[in-house]
Amino acid sequence: MPRISEKAIQMPQSPIRKLVPYADAAKARGTHVYHLNIGQPDIKTPEQVINKMRNLDREVIEYSHSAGYPSYRKKLTNYYNNLGLNITEDNIMVTTGGSEALLFLMQVCLNQGDEVIIPEPFYANYNGFATSSGVNVVPVTATIDVNFALPPIEDFEKLITENTKAIIICNPANPTGYVYSQEEFEVLKKLVIKYDLFLFADEVYREFCYSGKALSVLSLEGLDDNVVMIDSVSKRYSMCGARIGAIVTKNKEVLENALKFGQARLSPPTLGQIAGEAALETPQNYFDEVKEEYKARRDYVVNRLASMEGVKCPMPNGAFYAIAELPVDNAEAFCQWLLEEFSYKGSTVMFAPAAGFYSTKGKGLKEVRIAYVLNISDLTNALDCLEKALPQYQQEKMMAKSDLNNFN
Amino acid sequence: MPRISEKAIQMPQSPIRKLVPYADAAKARGTHVYHLNIGQPDIKTPEQVINKMRNLDREVIEYSHSAGYPSYRKKLTNYYNNLGLNITEDNIMVTTGGSEALLFLMQVCLNQGDEVIIPEPFYANYNGFATSSGVNVVPVTATIDVNFALPPIEDFEKLITENTKAIIICNPANPTGYVYSQEEFEVLKKLVIKYDLFLFADEVYREFCYSGKALSVLSLEGLDDNVVMIDSVSKRYSMCGARIGAIVTKNKEVLENALKFGQARLSPPTLGQIAGEAALETPQNYFDEVKEEYKARRDYVVNRLASMEGVKCPMPNGAFYAIAELPVDNAEAFCQWLLEEFSYKGSTVMFAPAAGFYSTKGKGLKEVRIAYVLNISDLTNALDCLEKALPQYQQEKMMAKSDLNNFN
Repeated sequence: MPRISEKAIQMPQSPIRKLVPYADAAKARGTHVYHLNIGQPDIKTPEQVINKMRNLDREVIEYSHSAGYPSYRKKLTNYYNNLGLNITEDNIMVTTGGSEALLFLMQVCLNQGDEVIIPEPFYANYNGFATSSGVNVVPVTATIDVNFALPPIEDFEKLITENTKAIIICNPANPTGYVYSQEEFEVLKKLVIKYDLFLFADEVYREFCYSGKALSVLSLEGLDDNVVMIDSVSKRYSMCGARIGAIVTKNKEVLENALKFGQARLSPPTLGQIAGEAALETPQNYFDEVKEEYKARRDYVVNRLASMEGVKCPMPNGAFYAIAELPVDNAEAFCQWLLEEFSYKGSTVMFAPAAGFYSTKGKGLKEVRIAYVLNISDLTNALDCLEKALPQYQQEKMMAKSDLNNFN
Repeated sequence: MPRISEKAIQMPQSPIRKLVPYADAAKARGTHVYHLNIGQPDIKTPEQVINKMRNLDREVIEYSHSAGYPSYRKKLTNYYNNLGLNITEDNIMVTTGGSEALLFLMQVCLNQGDEVIIPEPFYANYNGFATSSGVNVVPVTATIDVNFALPPIEDFEKLITENTKAIIICNPANPTGYVYSQEEFEVLKKLVIKYDLFLFADEVYREFCYSGKALSVLSLEGLDDNVVMIDSVSKRYSMCGARIGAIVTKNKEVLENALKFGQARLSPPTLGQIAGEAALETPQNYFDEVKEEYKARRDYVVNRLASMEGVKCPMPNGAFYAIAELPVDNAEAFCQWLLEEFSYKGSTVMFAPAAGFYSTKGKGLKEVRIAYVLNISDLTNALDCLEKALPQYQQEKMMAKSDLNNFN
């Protein structure tokens, strides 16, 4: 039997999805599972999108241009220009989700063995794209005590070597919900200029910012060749399944070379692009309502967590995630226990253990990522489960320990 | 300005799409361009698919399972089992087109620097996926004189080194239209067993076989761990834009590891999967009619080419491509000239220069790939263009040469 590759062996499992078999088993036993582990919102996709699909005026579902439909890219420029960014069609390549955008950027900009610095905890799939591309991830640790703010410039500089090629940020951040300030952007700008680095910014949660506005790296002056923005329709319009994203940059060389990777895979999904183009007609009140809803959920979740003994959860200002530190030694074991051994009123809750969002071994062991993507009624039941589970788990652990001591 | 990667520089441009700027310029001048360069059929997508989209019963366009919707995979097993293959849901991972299937397989099965042997001419994007994965393509040359049959076993064995890890075939073949025989399959089986190799078979043109049936590598006994089939809905249902394909294999290790790469990109396109599932309801008469149509086009194209002086074109038995050798020194220069300098009755024709489908430098320089994806009326006009163009091009070249001689 031929052997698989080293890369495949190294390829990390998704920390968001690795507990799925336990969730499936719980469901098979008849237990309801509240999924706060994955960023799949229950928010409705705009009716403009659903109606467009229901009036599909195609006879052949053809390939599009490898960089995406020109009509779609044209309309995207309006969207970006309304944000105060000065973007032309030639600055945009449509991709198969933000995922493909990141994968292409790593391949286009970094050599085998090059290093990319990423503030941790970070969106775990960055590891996957780095492994795919033979790129080494160098984490710079942000901490829960300062609400996961950008680590100080010295922490970055300590990590920079001749192999450092890029910095990746996510703003607003998955999994922390942190939104970077203008001052933090200036720090990043200083680093990028001083060491001639690429700055990739994953800005797919732009619309989910609960006070003030999320800045875009594209607004940083004098960085046109360094800065690349990753975008996606997934969260903005609650259409994760469309698999439509974009690379947006003024660096022509990067975009032209990304297009070669894009040509190899022929084109981004046609139906998703039709959906994406229709989504640009979504009225403002959709976003206002969705933001209000998420804000209410965030406030509810953070307040409930604050009332639980031993739980620490800073208030996130963006996206729809919160990182909570739990009074347990190993959050992954606890999450698995929630699925395997716990239920309350026939239900349990699933979180993503946060250790998978850290690259440094041993960090985030007590933390979980909570995606507040369910309505408040479901969130209430889910957090009721957590509230009941924590003391029960602690007691069981204590008893197991005392049993162990009796044996000794 | 930070430098892009070596990989990006090495990444080949698509030979199918590289002349696109000349085609765009021709169109801008008002010349109609018949696109025989790209495998984008004009055949209608089955009405079962279009109707499904028009009755879309979703409120949220969500992620699917990373391996594809279970309901879709379940129905796919019926499709494969009707072909006489014994496939379960656990043998299938749904991918974003056949493209992603191939990319994942290279990443999962081959290390940096490993070699994959591919009979050339081959689908040019295999080069792209190999470059992405740091894999070296080793071509074994098939020739137009024997209709692009599988090269003899000795030709393969000469190329096998300790780094050889896999063989890729495409059956029915893009770009040659060749369909492998049982005897050729036995040769491949012998090689794969003797050298413990993976055999990846791109079988996306299965339904387009004009006499007899295309065999599947999955029917080869005793090769469950070696054989992986790549599939796609693109051509079968004329829905290239759906971007839905599949990895099908009994090798659990390959599939489990491919799923890690699949988790990193979250899920294949949801709308495309809905389309793919609906497409499985397509009645047999759709395929019968489409096959008849392509057969008529093939016969027309090959007969017209046979009547042109100096043109050689073997009769392909599958897919919807033919390779033709033209009486020109450099088919790429000729293809460019067709777009830049030629028109007949306001039209011209675009082919894919075949050199881009060979990995060996200098092979296929006089050949083009013709995709007979247009109706016979369009094919007639397109081939009228070629018939007029060839003598005109030869005369212009001769005059240019004699001008040059006069200068000497």
